[in-house]
Amino acid sequence: MTAGTDSPLTRKLSAFALLNESETAMLERLHERRRSFSVGRDLVYQGQSRQAAYVLAAGWACSYKVQADGTRQIVDVQIPGDFLGLRSVLLRTSDHSFEPITDIEAIEVLSDDLLKLLTQMPRLATAIFWAASRDEAMVVEHLVGIGRRDAAARMAHFLLELAARLSLVGLGGRDGYDCPLTQYHLADALGLSAIHVNRVLRQLREKGLVTFRDGHVSFEDYDGLVTLADFDPTYLDQEGPLLSGA
Amino acid sequence: MTAGTDSPLTRKLSAFALLNESETAMLERLHERRRSFSVGRDLVYQGQSRQAAYVLAAGWACSYKVQADGTRQIVDVQIPGDFLGLRSVLLRTSDHSFEPITDIEAIEVLSDDLLKLLTQMPRLATAIFWAASRDEAMVVEHLVGIGRRDAAARMAHFLLELAARLSLVGLGGRDGYDCPLTQYHLADALGLSAIHVNRVLRQLREKGLVTFRDGHVSFEDYDGLVTLADFDPTYLDQEGPLLSGA
Repeated sequence: MTAGTDSPLTRKLSAFALLNESETAMLERLHERRRSFSVGRDLVYQGQSRQAAYVLAAGWACSYKVQADGTRQIVDVQIPGDFLGLRSVLLRTSDHSFEPITDIEAIEVLSDDLLKLLTQMPRLATAIFWAASRDEAMVVEHLVGIGRRDAAARMAHFLLELAARLSLVGLGGRDGYDCPLTQYHLADALGLSAIHVNRVLRQLREKGLVTFRDGHVSFEDYDGLVTLADFDPTYLDQEGPLLSGA
Repeated sequence: MTAGTDSPLTRKLSAFALLNESETAMLERLHERRRSFSVGRDLVYQGQSRQAAYVLAAGWACSYKVQADGTRQIVDVQIPGDFLGLRSVLLRTSDHSFEPITDIEAIEVLSDDLLKLLTQMPRLATAIFWAASRDEAMVVEHLVGIGRRDAAARMAHFLLELAARLSLVGLGGRDGYDCPLTQYHLADALGLSAIHVNRVLRQLREKGLVTFRDGHVSFEDYDGLVTLADFDPTYLDQEGPLLSGA
């Protein structure tokens, strides 16, 4: 994948702002510091200070927190175009860890470069702020899911959210998408046991709504799944740019 | 309370950036559009579009989402100096509602004014981005709490987080603080029943850790409560400014 207008980050931020040439060029320059990370090796660990942020260019990752008793909560999953650890640059110390779910390619954005970008390219900064707001809206949905949705609605909502996010960067749609998450990832993300995850996926499949098998999610009845999950994608704000060109 | 250097918002943002005169003056100007709201009347409702954001100047509020089945999840509580609906200006449609918990005073920030501030005063914008990142870190903690902490640790963590946040704006500390939350608010925030909330508060009191009675939280054994909750306030990033003066 090339940098610039074709990169997932540029595609994503373009949903918020029509980016001008110097803004696109700045995003391209970011792509020079591209690094590879292997599955299972944390990019950023909980408690680490003054680290870089990353933009995921290819592959999947997840952010998580581990409790003193060893239990783990996955906070969110990251797909191409997503920031990893953006919040931690501003808050100085990472409050969570990032783990590659597949082998990944990620663009390193040094803490000082990011602060410079934020304070010197305000329109781009606002677009990044939009992306961060969207990330927060997703964490809010996950909180509501764990607090108030039953296991089937929680799973359905999570799979539909991923479909909408992937479609924004050209990696999926209403038919389905490739998904490297295991039942253990789903369990840690949804606050369920792995056995419960299996049972819920079987129920959704038997109802003819969705099948998750061999690394692929297939929607058999997209609208039925939306109804079950009470899924309203407004919080993802993918309907076109708010900031016009400048 | 006067505007400018004494306002809770200025106090809070000063923990991130040493603000210069024009930045402080801009925050003062915001304070001109000050409005009062009564308990129980929502400021912003779920699904509302193109609304203003608010900065809470006095009193307490909460953000929440209601599910189709009528259950409610409180996402966070807001105290003086906090933004209400900042995310919704960028995302255009509010993904949640805000309700005053007490009578409140709030500064209205029109959507266009906020976008102008973000794109024209980048250092102030970065400070606001910091505040939003901190809000997100709190939602993440609430997610981890509901997903992975038992009821006592969840309650202890929540009460300690509020103490740290209130101390930043001069409204509380390690002794305790005034707190207008009812057992119903605590239940909706922590994913517990009101009866369960009562039982947990009684346990914490009988262990000599904390008493919440007549609108006041008193820490009897602050360090013991920190241990029980495994509370590490690093995510609140209150240790002093990252951006120096300019």
